[in-house]
Amino acid sequence: MQIVILAGGVGGSKFALGVRHAYPTAALTVIANTADDITLHGLRICPDLDTIMYTLGGAADPVRGWGRKGESWRVMEELRTYGVEPTWFALGDRDIATHLVRTEMLTAGYPLSEVTAALCTRWLAGDERLSLLPMTDDRVETHVTVADPEAPGQLRAVHFQEYWVRLHARPDALGITLVGLKTAAPAPGVLEAIERADMILVAPSNPVVSIGPILAVPGLREALQQAPATVVGFAGILGGSPVLGMADRLLPAIGVEVDAAAVGLHYGARTRGGVLNAWAMDVSDAASTERVQQGGIRAVVTDLIMRDPASTAAFVAYAIKSATS
Amino acid sequence: MQIVILAGGVGGSKFALGVRHAYPTAALTVIANTADDITLHGLRICPDLDTIMYTLGGAADPVRGWGRKGESWRVMEELRTYGVEPTWFALGDRDIATHLVRTEMLTAGYPLSEVTAALCTRWLAGDERLSLLPMTDDRVETHVTVADPEAPGQLRAVHFQEYWVRLHARPDALGITLVGLKTAAPAPGVLEAIERADMILVAPSNPVVSIGPILAVPGLREALQQAPATVVGFAGILGGSPVLGMADRLLPAIGVEVDAAAVGLHYGARTRGGVLNAWAMDVSDAASTERVQQGGIRAVVTDLIMRDPASTAAFVAYAIKSATS
Repeated sequence: MQIVILAGGVGGSKFALGVRHAYPTAALTVIANTADDITLHGLRICPDLDTIMYTLGGAADPVRGWGRKGESWRVMEELRTYGVEPTWFALGDRDIATHLVRTEMLTAGYPLSEVTAALCTRWLAGDERLSLLPMTDDRVETHVTVADPEAPGQLRAVHFQEYWVRLHARPDALGITLVGLKTAAPAPGVLEAIERADMILVAPSNPVVSIGPILAVPGLREALQQAPATVVGFAGILGGSPVLGMADRLLPAIGVEVDAAAVGLHYGARTRGGVLNAWAMDVSDAASTERVQQGGIRAVVTDLIMRDPASTAAFVAYAIKSATS
Repeated sequence: MQIVILAGGVGGSKFALGVRHAYPTAALTVIANTADDITLHGLRICPDLDTIMYTLGGAADPVRGWGRKGESWRVMEELRTYGVEPTWFALGDRDIATHLVRTEMLTAGYPLSEVTAALCTRWLAGDERLSLLPMTDDRVETHVTVADPEAPGQLRAVHFQEYWVRLHARPDALGITLVGLKTAAPAPGVLEAIERADMILVAPSNPVVSIGPILAVPGLREALQQAPATVVGFAGILGGSPVLGMADRLLPAIGVEVDAAAVGLHYGARTRGGVLNAWAMDVSDAASTERVQQGGIRAVVTDLIMRDPASTAAFVAYAIKSATS
């Protein structure tokens, strides 16, 4: 079986680990969001790709959910002592080696997809059933429009990482701009993976800044609509709150209610120009079943809390079975 | 008093520390060799500038003589695990922060002299009497021609760092090429420092790959010849052997004997188109005094071993006094 997952970072990688647990012999292709990518201190950083790579490679920090386990922070301490900005984005020493390899390869002219494949020879070594693709090789950046605290009455667009990490998503997100997305192309392998998939899963990642950019890559939405596989999405909003992250701070910026059914309907039914065949919601959202079904999407209700790979595997298998029965 | 020192890395920085000890109130400008600079893992590395900066800033590792004290090697371990070449040039975590700051500033368009000044605001903070200048802002690289071990009968040029660090200076150096030097210009401040100096000192650094490139920067030799100050050079060869480093492996490549007097005569007398007024040699080379004087250079004989800043200060003060009396 060939499974494709569309995923962001922390939630997406936990989800992917669960899918792997549920279908250990399936060929798994994770298509990752790259609109969070940022260049800091001259290093090209791809947080979602790295989180998925480290997690599937067994090297992610289990407490933080991002970065490497056993990490140290010597380089960062020095950068702080130099007074070099920004200091709000923490880069671990081990993690920096990844960024050095990536930046050098990108500078030498390799596209991000080839760089990712090269890094994954270490992390997913010997496992031909796992592959990780960036959604695009083109540079794309999510910017968030906020009220400028230094110039009252003025708006300011900040990189998503600045909004998320430095500003802790505190200012209201007044708008989301996906810089560069309109002219981006799917990375090599992305459309092919969608086309040949037996099952396509939309991870319970942030609908605005993780899944949103992936679906906005030109050609990707069309590929999902035409794919022979069933597309099953998983809600990251449980009982009106995001289970991870701060999607509740971003959904208002795109005019979507902070509610599982609303997100499913935002992705939309394949029969009506959207991408979903089925939408898995948590038991706490069981009351919304009808609303989702009225939107042309098969609603699946289950326990969506990702306690560990086994519990994630259980709800993934149940949702797939329900969606395809 | 304004003192200018022409210097390489490890020996040059020890020497500068001694000069500072001898003349604590003098304004000291160190003009450093940059022909050893190299780009590795996308980072621009300036070993001589950094060694001098760390040493004068009290942060150099006293045992290795290069790099930071209290250094760790996490990033490097990871790069090795990634299998990224080269692995023969060790980069410490703290040191990498310096290279990140430098590389980002260079990429942003700042010349090396401004980058060096920015880094030195940390290391030489608050001491207006100390300044560190790269010999040039232009990219210059020393390449060493050796017999190619993989293709018998063929020659191969390797970067100086590869010759020095990876090959441990084992193959005979058949030639030295200073790539880019002919079109390089002295960095801002270099000619001015030489012109206004009260005393110019040539450190006991490697004559071929440290002092050689500095003197070869177009305009620099002429500035030294016209400078009002006395120029005193210090032999790094003591009793026929280099006191530090492996100058004995390189001098043959430029046809100079591994001998203190021969190096002094290679630099030459200012009255005869060279750069020296006086040449300080170790007591073990006292027999060469006449040979140096016949070359038009005042010979000074003293104990040239740099045991600590105080012993270096003692011979520097003695040599200056002898040269100017």
